[in-house]
Amino acid sequence: MSTDPLVIFTPSGKRGRFAVGTPVLTAARQLGVDLDSVCGGRGICSKCQITPSYGDFPKHGLHVAETALSEWNAVEQRYDDKRGLKPGRRLGCQATVQGDVVIDVPPESQVHRQVVRKAASARVIEMDPATRLYYVEVLEPDMHEPTGDLERVARALKEQWGIDDVQASFAVIPGLQKVLRKGDWKITVALHTADGAAPRITAVWPGLHEAGIFGLAIDLGSTTIAAHLTNLETGEVKASSGIMNPQIRFGEDLMSRVSYAMMNPGGDVEMTRAVREALDALTREIAAEAGIDTGLILETVFVCNPVMHHLLLGIDPVELGQAPFALATSDALNLTAVELGLAALPASAQIYILPCIAGHVGADAAAVALSEEPGKSEDLVLVVDVGTNAEILLGDKTRVLACSSPTGPAFEGAQISSGQRAAPGAIEAIRIDPITKDPRFRVIGCDKWSDEDGFWEETAQTGITGICGSGIIEAVAEMRIAGLVDPSGLIGSAAQTGTERCIPEGRTHAYLIHDASAEGGPRITVTQGDIRAIQLAKSALYAGARLLMDERNVDKVDRVVLAGAFGAHISPLHAMVLGMIPDVPLDKVTSAGNAAGTGARIALCNVAARREVERVVGEITKVETAIEPRFQEHFVNANAIPHATDPFPELGKITQLPHVSFNTGGGDGEGGGRRRRRRG
Amino acid sequence: MSTDPLVIFTPSGKRGRFAVGTPVLTAARQLGVDLDSVCGGRGICSKCQITPSYGDFPKHGLHVAETALSEWNAVEQRYDDKRGLKPGRRLGCQATVQGDVVIDVPPESQVHRQVVRKAASARVIEMDPATRLYYVEVLEPDMHEPTGDLERVARALKEQWGIDDVQASFAVIPGLQKVLRKGDWKITVALHTADGAAPRITAVWPGLHEAGIFGLAIDLGSTTIAAHLTNLETGEVKASSGIMNPQIRFGEDLMSRVSYAMMNPGGDVEMTRAVREALDALTREIAAEAGIDTGLILETVFVCNPVMHHLLLGIDPVELGQAPFALATSDALNLTAVELGLAALPASAQIYILPCIAGHVGADAAAVALSEEPGKSEDLVLVVDVGTNAEILLGDKTRVLACSSPTGPAFEGAQISSGQRAAPGAIEAIRIDPITKDPRFRVIGCDKWSDEDGFWEETAQTGITGICGSGIIEAVAEMRIAGLVDPSGLIGSAAQTGTERCIPEGRTHAYLIHDASAEGGPRITVTQGDIRAIQLAKSALYAGARLLMDERNVDKVDRVVLAGAFGAHISPLHAMVLGMIPDVPLDKVTSAGNAAGTGARIALCNVAARREVERVVGEITKVETAIEPRFQEHFVNANAIPHATDPFPELGKITQLPHVSFNTGGGDGEGGGRRRRRRG
Repeated sequence: MSTDPLVIFTPSGKRGRFAVGTPVLTAARQLGVDLDSVCGGRGICSKCQITPSYGDFPKHGLHVAETALSEWNAVEQRYDDKRGLKPGRRLGCQATVQGDVVIDVPPESQVHRQVVRKAASARVIEMDPATRLYYVEVLEPDMHEPTGDLERVARALKEQWGIDDVQASFAVIPGLQKVLRKGDWKITVALHTADGAAPRITAVWPGLHEAGIFGLAIDLGSTTIAAHLTNLETGEVKASSGIMNPQIRFGEDLMSRVSYAMMNPGGDVEMTRAVREALDALTREIAAEAGIDTGLILETVFVCNPVMHHLLLGIDPVELGQAPFALATSDALNLTAVELGLAALPASAQIYILPCIAGHVGADAAAVALSEEPGKSEDLVLVVDVGTNAEILLGDKTRVLACSSPTGPAFEGAQISSGQRAAPGAIEAIRIDPITKDPRFRVIGCDKWSDEDGFWEETAQTGITGICGSGIIEAVAEMRIAGLVDPSGLIGSAAQTGTERCIPEGRTHAYLIHDASAEGGPRITVTQGDIRAIQLAKSALYAGARLLMDERNVDKVDRVVLAGAFGAHISPLHAMVLGMIPDVPLDKVTSAGNAAGTGARIALCNVAARREVERVVGEITKVETAIEPRFQEHFVNANAIPHATDPFPELGKITQLPHVSFNTGGGDGEGGGRRRRRRG
Repeated sequence: MSTDPLVIFTPSGKRGRFAVGTPVLTAARQLGVDLDSVCGGRGICSKCQITPSYGDFPKHGLHVAETALSEWNAVEQRYDDKRGLKPGRRLGCQATVQGDVVIDVPPESQVHRQVVRKAASARVIEMDPATRLYYVEVLEPDMHEPTGDLERVARALKEQWGIDDVQASFAVIPGLQKVLRKGDWKITVALHTADGAAPRITAVWPGLHEAGIFGLAIDLGSTTIAAHLTNLETGEVKASSGIMNPQIRFGEDLMSRVSYAMMNPGGDVEMTRAVREALDALTREIAAEAGIDTGLILETVFVCNPVMHHLLLGIDPVELGQAPFALATSDALNLTAVELGLAALPASAQIYILPCIAGHVGADAAAVALSEEPGKSEDLVLVVDVGTNAEILLGDKTRVLACSSPTGPAFEGAQISSGQRAAPGAIEAIRIDPITKDPRFRVIGCDKWSDEDGFWEETAQTGITGICGSGIIEAVAEMRIAGLVDPSGLIGSAAQTGTERCIPEGRTHAYLIHDASAEGGPRITVTQGDIRAIQLAKSALYAGARLLMDERNVDKVDRVVLAGAFGAHISPLHAMVLGMIPDVPLDKVTSAGNAAGTGARIALCNVAARREVERVVGEITKVETAIEPRFQEHFVNANAIPHATDPFPELGKITQLPHVSFNTGGGDGEGGGRRRRRRG
């Protein structure tokens, strides 16, 4: 036995001695090396590609001869002719061990391959999805030993893959016989293994299925619905797409929708239908964009706030509108597309909905916790997921707190006079010259600033259409820095500010950013109403963060993570000028992009992450803002935009701007009170 | 401890000593005595009624004093005032042990109470249904410890009933919050526990649910669909109802329907829709008849032949029409009403479909095996379930064989010129005087024979409308006994038979049973075509039985059980005259009624029976008639009606009829060939 050849796998370092003639795939299996195979070693799926290394390996005291593996064979040649193998690659199921050898398993041949996230965070997603493909050869029916075709498929999975007690989604059964006969009793099975339940066949194809299987990670927000279509074998994001949540017509913010349900019998059913139809449209759109059949989308993961959670599930959200804000169900849910009434997905598609944390802290916050892992942080981190409803997490290794705050849709460009969603033509960044008070800006779809050469030519196509969420945050902050707005939020007159851009509008003033009205285009201004909307939103956000800091008995945090569909685009400097987030050194503010969406994608690609988030949610301390008197206090106190009267040290260092002051003139009083709610 | 009072429960005989003050229910629980309770001992459900016995019990060496139980209390008084308690009864949760006592648990207080079947067989059904009721008091939501309402229900089931890992049917979740609030956090939960899966909440009601829960046992036949609505707590059959299978319009027998599916794209979908709509109609009808809400029907069990099985499930039955007759799936299925598209049932209603035995031997045969238990028989029993497709089982303790035989719908009165389904007005029994050749008969709905006083008055309302299955069997056999038909099946002329009732009809003759045409009523005859149809049907049945006997290497069986929806109504004598079944002493022929339907009812009421039938099915030897040359041989040989030329000893003893013979004249030749199939 000790004279058998030594096989060393890299990068795992796993090693063992195997008899001459052992296929590399078999050796890998026996050592527990992570080497993929869908066809089970039949030389047809090519998932088990490996790269042998030849020559001297002093580290291992090994010389690998050119003859260490069996000769290139006809199966490999056929595959190479048909699809092409990279130079140096072999098929692990065909190449057999002939002598001592070092074998590298390239990342794409690993089952649990790691997918690097695009976001700034270094965390990678290890591929371990709930649904996997298995190629099986099924016994033909024998009328003298009658058994069902499905039962023989289950037997093949047991005998060829060691998987016991396989069941089938009911939707798969009617098509099974045709697939088996078309594939001449060789089929590929998609098998879903959920926590505790029996493995379940959710799709079958004749022969070896090579078109891939896919999953959707959906961040179902109050205002926008964002989806990532992900290849469940490779982790690759094939397409990302978003649409507006059609429920906006029933109410722009969550409480408006709850009111709609309370006041209109059947209103909840109407909203459920609207969101499900939108999800169907989004599913078809994103599949078309990626050029794949919707029938290949076998998994969908949802993250959403509690009201969207209930409306998606068809639950009247009325209890979420009043204390004690009782969720109908809070645990993670495993469902099927047919149960959820999602017609664009295959009926057998498996749905996973992350758990909710509390009546106002939803599965989206859970997804942020999964993505940003505040509970693993050494220092005290504040994670703010900015949206129509902000999810706020504060914590470190010792303890994590969570709350949500009803910021309203202003941060997403809604309820803003020139507001619009982030799309080409929208102003996303703005700077105001403190001397001339003139703006320069950048729009989505063009890398240049408006005072750079070529900007107007490049934007001629889209035009300047409005201001998106990150744009309005910068505009208000820059107006404050430039002395156009006083600490109470009041816009000064032309006389007070010294610029004709401050134009009268009713009894208040507005700041003119861009006027294309002469050419029939829009006139883009920031009005007093816009400032008030942003003040309400930022006060709510800040008050939520402060409430959690009170609970932790701290006055400051070590770092801040800005998240949200457009969180990545918010300028930390301007967020702090506005007072959206507590003061921290600017280099301690990072952006996590759409952390909730990322959390959904992690749960889509890795089943262990589902168990992880279910565990983490149980350990989070929930803080209910709606009934906490201190929240109202913090909210009122946070209304001002403090920069001018209470100089901001970080800002001073960076912008070197002179302090500007002018007669404050008093506010209109609306901003300091309770957050008003608009009805859609 | 040894001085604690002794408590003896009857009829179980279980005994133990309990501290003074122990509630009787608690003592029963600790001893494993089968004493029901839905409310968990709160004195509101009254399921735990017991009867204490007082006086001397020399057998136990015990004297039970009048003070052996605590005094009648206010809770018992309130229940007695409201609903009435039988004399001597106490509530087991209220009465506490004060001294040595003997306590009887009446049958209606036993969870696993036994239900005596109406059929002749002595076997009883032990109540142990998959769905049970539990009353729970649920914690109210606390916004400082936020959890979902559902999660608190699960916690209550765990804490109050020791049931772990409860899940909820998705359909239950949207209504849960309203029920909890309406019941002031006290609710009754219907919990379904299927093999291996987590316990599942399938219905909830506010407070204590007293309207019962129900199940449907459905025998889905080719020609008729029969249902029994059963109380899942008591086992009581609340209503039985049947309707015609609307698929008859696509083909009267199974192979015609398979052909319809093969030749008409979408034909299978059309037939699936038809049968599901019929099941919805039947469900609504039977619930209305019993006066219960369909929402209370939480379980349904189906038994059916393989073609109906596939068409119910939405599977194209094409593979069942050709060798090797592969079933798409053969194992038992656990589904929900929503998956099966049964709209009249609650979406969460649980469906159990018995396993199929083979491509031609279905879940109905499995149900007959469950009901009649040939595998437990000491002597060799032949069980024949007569229907459009006959299920035939032959066996004893050592081995059981099964096959099916395509008898066609003649035995159900279809394809018969004056045939009709069993309904008031149908001739169900007939005798022909061997001398006068005149008939006398009995119709459904009247106990008298047609030659008895009052018959015509009593049947004036319904009239004489036709002949049902058992009637046509008797008519043909009696015609043979009376010498109206020769061994080949040919009806003699008036001249040959000496009766004017033998009237010419085309090139053949018919026998006139009843002529109401003068009053605008029907003219009821048995035609040559009717005789041929019965010959084909009985030959198929007999050939199937013979084939199984060949497999067992026997020439005779010890006893015969006739089963089927109308099997109970078939006269064993006439069945043997016809040659439907092999010869056995007449007292060895028993009737089991609708054995398949009974099997369905057993599986509905007892989960262990489901495991039992799944096991038994695996042990049955399947014989495929369709490809067995000997089946054709037996079929051809069985065509004759042998009585006259091959005197039937049993018949001679009983009927004392003279043998009659006449010129046979030869048949038209159609009966001896392969069984022809009509298309509907």
